[in-house]
Amino acid sequence: MRKIGIIGMGHVGATIAYTLVTQGLVDDLILIDKNDAKADAEYNDLRDALPRNSHYVNIIKQDWDDLEDVDIIVTAFGDIAATVKTRDRFGEFDLNAKNAKQVGEDIKESGFDGVLINVSNPCDAVTQILQETTDLKKNRVFGTGTFLDTARMQRIVGDKLGQDPRNVEGFVLGEHGSAQFTAWSTVRVNNKIALQLFNEADQEKISEQSNKNAFAVANGKGYTSYAVAMCAVDLIKAVFSDARAYYPVSTYDPEFKTYLGYPAIIGRDGVEELIELKLTSAEHEKLNAAAQKIKEHVDSLKKK
Amino acid sequence: MRKIGIIGMGHVGATIAYTLVTQGLVDDLILIDKNDAKADAEYNDLRDALPRNSHYVNIIKQDWDDLEDVDIIVTAFGDIAATVKTRDRFGEFDLNAKNAKQVGEDIKESGFDGVLINVSNPCDAVTQILQETTDLKKNRVFGTGTFLDTARMQRIVGDKLGQDPRNVEGFVLGEHGSAQFTAWSTVRVNNKIALQLFNEADQEKISEQSNKNAFAVANGKGYTSYAVAMCAVDLIKAVFSDARAYYPVSTYDPEFKTYLGYPAIIGRDGVEELIELKLTSAEHEKLNAAAQKIKEHVDSLKKK
Amino acid sequence: MRKIGIIGMGHVGATIAYTLVTQGLVDDLILIDKNDAKADAEYNDLRDALPRNSHYVNIIKQDWDDLEDVDIIVTAFGDIAATVKTRDRFGEFDLNAKNAKQVGEDIKESGFDGVLINVSNPCDAVTQILQETTDLKKNRVFGTGTFLDTARMQRIVGDKLGQDPRNVEGFVLGEHGSAQFTAWSTVRVNNKIALQLFNEADQEKISEQSNKNAFAVANGKGYTSYAVAMCAVDLIKAVFSDARAYYPVSTYDPEFKTYLGYPAIIGRDGVEELIELKLTSAEHEKLNAAAQKIKEHVDSLKKK
Amino acid sequence: MRKIGIIGMGHVGATIAYTLVTQGLVDDLILIDKNDAKADAEYNDLRDALPRNSHYVNIIKQDWDDLEDVDIIVTAFGDIAATVKTRDRFGEFDLNAKNAKQVGEDIKESGFDGVLINVSNPCDAVTQILQETTDLKKNRVFGTGTFLDTARMQRIVGDKLGQDPRNVEGFVLGEHGSAQFTAWSTVRVNNKIALQLFNEADQEKISEQSNKNAFAVANGKGYTSYAVAMCAVDLIKAVFSDARAYYPVSTYDPEFKTYLGYPAIIGRDGVEELIELKLTSAEHEKLNAAAQKIKEHVDSLKKK
Repeated sequence: MRKIGIIGMGHVGATIAYTLVTQGLVDDLILIDKNDAKADAEYNDLRDALPRNSHYVNIIKQDWDDLEDVDIIVTAFGDIAATVKTRDRFGEFDLNAKNAKQVGEDIKESGFDGVLINVSNPCDAVTQILQETTDLKKNRVFGTGTFLDTARMQRIVGDKLGQDPRNVEGFVLGEHGSAQFTAWSTVRVNNKIALQLFNEADQEKISEQSNKNAFAVANGKGYTSYAVAMCAVDLIKAVFSDARAYYPVSTYDPEFKTYLGYPAIIGRDGVEELIELKLTSAEHEKLNAAAQKIKEHVDSLKKK
Repeated sequence: MRKIGIIGMGHVGATIAYTLVTQGLVDDLILIDKNDAKADAEYNDLRDALPRNSHYVNIIKQDWDDLEDVDIIVTAFGDIAATVKTRDRFGEFDLNAKNAKQVGEDIKESGFDGVLINVSNPCDAVTQILQETTDLKKNRVFGTGTFLDTARMQRIVGDKLGQDPRNVEGFVLGEHGSAQFTAWSTVRVNNKIALQLFNEADQEKISEQSNKNAFAVANGKGYTSYAVAMCAVDLIKAVFSDARAYYPVSTYDPEFKTYLGYPAIIGRDGVEELIELKLTSAEHEKLNAAAQKIKEHVDSLKKK
Repeated sequence: MRKIGIIGMGHVGATIAYTLVTQGLVDDLILIDKNDAKADAEYNDLRDALPRNSHYVNIIKQDWDDLEDVDIIVTAFGDIAATVKTRDRFGEFDLNAKNAKQVGEDIKESGFDGVLINVSNPCDAVTQILQETTDLKKNRVFGTGTFLDTARMQRIVGDKLGQDPRNVEGFVLGEHGSAQFTAWSTVRVNNKIALQLFNEADQEKISEQSNKNAFAVANGKGYTSYAVAMCAVDLIKAVFSDARAYYPVSTYDPEFKTYLGYPAIIGRDGVEELIELKLTSAEHEKLNAAAQKIKEHVDSLKKK
Repeated sequence: MRKIGIIGMGHVGATIAYTLVTQGLVDDLILIDKNDAKADAEYNDLRDALPRNSHYVNIIKQDWDDLEDVDIIVTAFGDIAATVKTRDRFGEFDLNAKNAKQVGEDIKESGFDGVLINVSNPCDAVTQILQETTDLKKNRVFGTGTFLDTARMQRIVGDKLGQDPRNVEGFVLGEHGSAQFTAWSTVRVNNKIALQLFNEADQEKISEQSNKNAFAVANGKGYTSYAVAMCAVDLIKAVFSDARAYYPVSTYDPEFKTYLGYPAIIGRDGVEELIELKLTSAEHEKLNAAAQKIKEHVDSLKKK
């Protein structure tokens, strides 16, 4: 059976739980939050939904010990208010670095030995801290990273052409944050190279908008939840079925010795493989800049 | 194709939208909120999710004119804070009575001639106001009402017996509010009459808990969203497919001359039929009490 | 992850596989048939569907050893032609008794220790043989039995009333075969006792039609597949999620010391519990008659 | 609401119906077959499944008049035996050209004015005959064509690399038949041009295998059903939601003045747009050869 633990019952964690329950993607689902009342509320709301759901799900709350044999842990802790206020996901860094260390240690203590998918921000740095503190193998720990930014880019490009965003291929890379960039050399729409569809100014605008959309959403509703939940759910599905699907995630990159947003093959063992992209030198430079930014933040912690 | 409008992008309206989108239950989906930024945020978050969804959906925002030819309108406006504060859904009455009149008139003006499903609280009274102001036929307007309370009762009974809540049949009737009651004469579990499974004290406790669960959830997360969204979605499905399914909803009851929570056959024309239940006289009295409470509130408006 | 083996790639086995794949209900799926070309064809057709499916699934073929650690085995072998020809599922008995012994031994040899759900006909007798030859605990082995006949009864009653068949509660019991009967004392529609909705002649007609529908379908298309596959899939879902749902299945009944169609609580351990029904004495007699018929057939084998 | 008619209740038509019903993609579904008993059997088997389905569907049979206001007609008539025997889909041509004319006239007479999706073989030629006899606009009539062959190519390439077939982009073009070819210039895996992944011999082998897989499946089970049904369902979804998705279908190509397999943007109006591909001259030649083959067959009819 499929067993998942979600740590952090904010809007993102709860939406992931709701999606897993309504789509019948999980058998045992453990909900954890440092705020008992919050965990309780989501637990009760989801369980009140079961009589109307076409799948039964065992929903369990606040049981850290039970994480020992879950297949997948999703971490979705944090406080987006700090991100929205500073318009930078590193606004949550101090808080979430601390959270990540504590959560990572607690996960380690539980004996968990599965795949950890991190959604907490700043995603790349937090994913790295979680890998280090849980002591899980690097491939077993990855984040949603620029998967969400990629979806936003696909959607913006689709809008511009009046088409299904699923017609758009390609990636946003680097940091799930301000150092992200659309790797236009990877983008294709309807088998056409996107570089030929958009001039440089348009490319720049789309790339910026993919990043800004997060704040447009967060300003209006106080957080973002639906798109990021769908990204997490696709990653969960790929792990369970050993899909070896090709998705841009926050993954450890041996070249840069840090986690960053880069496409990877996702299967039952987490990140199964990184595929070399033929990036332009300008894109590679941006990737390097993102890597340096993430590293600096992670390193700054170690000096404290 | 299936076309739905949702008025009110609070947590409930947005969760209904998300569920419809992720389950492929709608083709054209119009999102409306008096707060432009809120409508915008949900619109963008949902559209950012489309690249990862297995269904495309046309999502439209803030277009009242486009309601003319939608099949179903869901109303989910209001401010749950007032309900949570007073621990009574009539805490939202003044606000939502005003909302309902405005929304009802705007719907009427749009030329809408489909089925209206109301989720706004106090559900029964607001449904009645919406019926009166939209001037739609009574059967075309109904509310989620005690469908949600029924789910909660099923879940609590299921918990007590350690079983799937879908094993539990029967209804919570009356008001989607404090005048609600579990009609124990209708409840059966595993083909056994529930009256024989629980003594009177237990019956009373379960009945109260079904009502209180709403506040337990709302206290912990500030609102309730998942279970009620599932109820609304089941009603939407029944209307589209003309299922003639048997669900407890907030329906106009000719006996009491008011909307109240009672089981009805739901099909393409909304409420197709009310089925006579053989309630005990105590239950009938409680139903009457709920009806009087709802009527008094609705009538109080007319005197203003 | 969820791992399932299906033995028998006839129309029923293949339709179950297709349903599991398209609904994302399985991660590893093993397809087995004594006819290599058949297994190969279904394997290839399903795998050709994966690029268009919203779930990846590991599909494996003809690997008996891999059954060792599957969670659920579905047995769907047989040759419906013999059933259609004789208009009695015992037309397949000689063939399937032999199949069941062989398959049961092969399953035992694989080291399988999960839950076995049998669809092969005559369902009750074959389920018993499979339990005996696999040596699995009795609760771990059950069949779709009269779950399908119950669906047919619900649908016929729904048709008569112009309503959603899911409004109809109650059971067909006894044998998934000619000794089946609608236990009218258990049937309710819209909270009304069905005995009051239909006179005795109608009851008799509906009961017969629920049995005959199988042959109406099989005569027209050569087999039946969709409804029975849906029954099997619901049982699979209940086992994975430990739903403790209440379904009529072919279960071992200690009172009659045989497998027969009777409602049971289905969970992760298979049949978790039998619930006592208050059948009328006429119904109990029919249940007994069905039990004797099934026993005689199973016993006749032992004398050979 | 969504209304669909399926003409032809062979394995393909019935599997499409089953998929639409189980996934809740249709509200009114009309099943038509020249063989009453076959239509009846599928109708009954599907309706017997409704009590266990999470969606109700109005299923109707043999009602040509009711096609007047359906949104989409799927044509799936024919006799695959002739195709399997001759190992060429033109083995069904004489039969299906006759069927197509009759069906086309009957559709025209019904007053149908929606989108027609043809699955019958030889797909390109039959689609053209249906367009001509129904007198529907060319964009409103298209076929599954090489969408299925494309899925097969994706799956074979995915297999070779041990990856999710959805990682593979690109198209099989030309004829849904022996004149089909993998347009390698369009194929990419993990952002890599497939031409660099496979040498010419491998390319040739994969291209052939994509074509041969159909017969491998058909030889083993007597027909193919699952993969092609999934293709048809994706096209149906794109039409309902006006997705403007980019899929390879059998579409009228003004350059060649015939239907053939080529990628198109699919929306509510059927084929919304053809996108120019930068094919190599060898590929363009193959496309031309396929077009000529299809045209010759269609023209040969007119001389009769």
